[in-house]
Amino acid sequence: MALSSALLEAAVDQLATLPGIGRRTAMRMALDLLRREVPEVVRFSEAVRRLREEVVYCSECCNISDQPLCAICADPRRDRTLICVVEDIRDVIAIENTHQYKGLYHVLGGVISPMDGVGPDDLHVKELLERTARGGIQEVVLALGATLEGDTTSFFLHRKLAGAGLQVSMIARGISVGGDLDQVDEMTLGRSIADRKPYQQHAHAG
Amino acid sequence: MALSSALLEAAVDQLATLPGIGRRTAMRMALDLLRREVPEVVRFSEAVRRLREEVVYCSECCNISDQPLCAICADPRRDRTLICVVEDIRDVIAIENTHQYKGLYHVLGGVISPMDGVGPDDLHVKELLERTARGGIQEVVLALGATLEGDTTSFFLHRKLAGAGLQVSMIARGISVGGDLDQVDEMTLGRSIADRKPYQQHAHAG
Repeated sequence: MALSSALLEAAVDQLATLPGIGRRTAMRMALDLLRREVPEVVRFSEAVRRLREEVVYCSECCNISDQPLCAICADPRRDRTLICVVEDIRDVIAIENTHQYKGLYHVLGGVISPMDGVGPDDLHVKELLERTARGGIQEVVLALGATLEGDTTSFFLHRKLAGAGLQVSMIARGISVGGDLDQVDEMTLGRSIADRKPYQQHAHAG
Repeated sequence: MALSSALLEAAVDQLATLPGIGRRTAMRMALDLLRREVPEVVRFSEAVRRLREEVVYCSECCNISDQPLCAICADPRRDRTLICVVEDIRDVIAIENTHQYKGLYHVLGGVISPMDGVGPDDLHVKELLERTARGGIQEVVLALGATLEGDTTSFFLHRKLAGAGLQVSMIARGISVGGDLDQVDEMTLGRSIADRKPYQQHAHAG
């Protein structure tokens, strides 16, 4: 049945474009918004519009930023010889939260995915190659997801960066800290055996 | 860790106010919106703002509408002696989809819920009592959810409507059509036994 209100229909249609949101959930969201005061909904609407209209990307690492140069790229304490390549800002946040990395980042804005029509030209690959071409970079760490798309992108970048006189590495894959062996999938366990390394004492995060 | 962009932070904060959406999902939504073209995001933002700013409620049944009188209330083929009381527009749509009901509706806009600070004055109860007081109504069907809040609201409305010279009924509770007895919870099964009625041939929807 068509809805009794074109306004409601339009709002539900738009909310249902959000990732993971079906029409039933979109309707629940629309009714929730209707129960709020007008200024509150205007703030919601404005925050979304301004995000897209006024967003700034760091001219160095392409991360979402408020400044032409983001806080990480502008920080003189970071190791400027090291670039960690990630998919999006969530990965930057996740890695920063480990407090294990003191280099710079490069945010691709996605991974190569022919199924979704995403090729290298849709990502910030050109900017990465420009950065490494300017010199001063000793190592590029590929920190992309352990998926088909992530692996494809890592392979592509590895080939592009080969011969640029820098080391290309990728983050380790293996069993999770605190994980039991019988809980680990076969691919990961197989990989962790193939990638075994000489014994050393680890700090245990558990 | 704080986000590198106040714009992103604001948008994530707002998206996380939607029902059932946490900050992680809100971030995924914000990044999805950032990947879209500007006019597309403006349409999204406008649809939400206009929904709240320009919404019209039917002067009779309080349903969300585009007209001062909604399509159902304006339809001369509907039985005007019968009012079905529901929580919100989703219930109107659900009942309309059954094609079993030809009367009018009254949309309360919620149910009484002291836990959430929702009392009778926050609902369209006054409008319902005004409608029944104008006469011409023979039956009010309470079609609220089978929850504590729904039952409380039904009880409250039943008392308010008692003595108004009309019949107050409520929709049947029992086992689902197509349902096996051993799948039904004890409350529902007990209720369906207590509410048993003389045998009659049913159309089977399964």
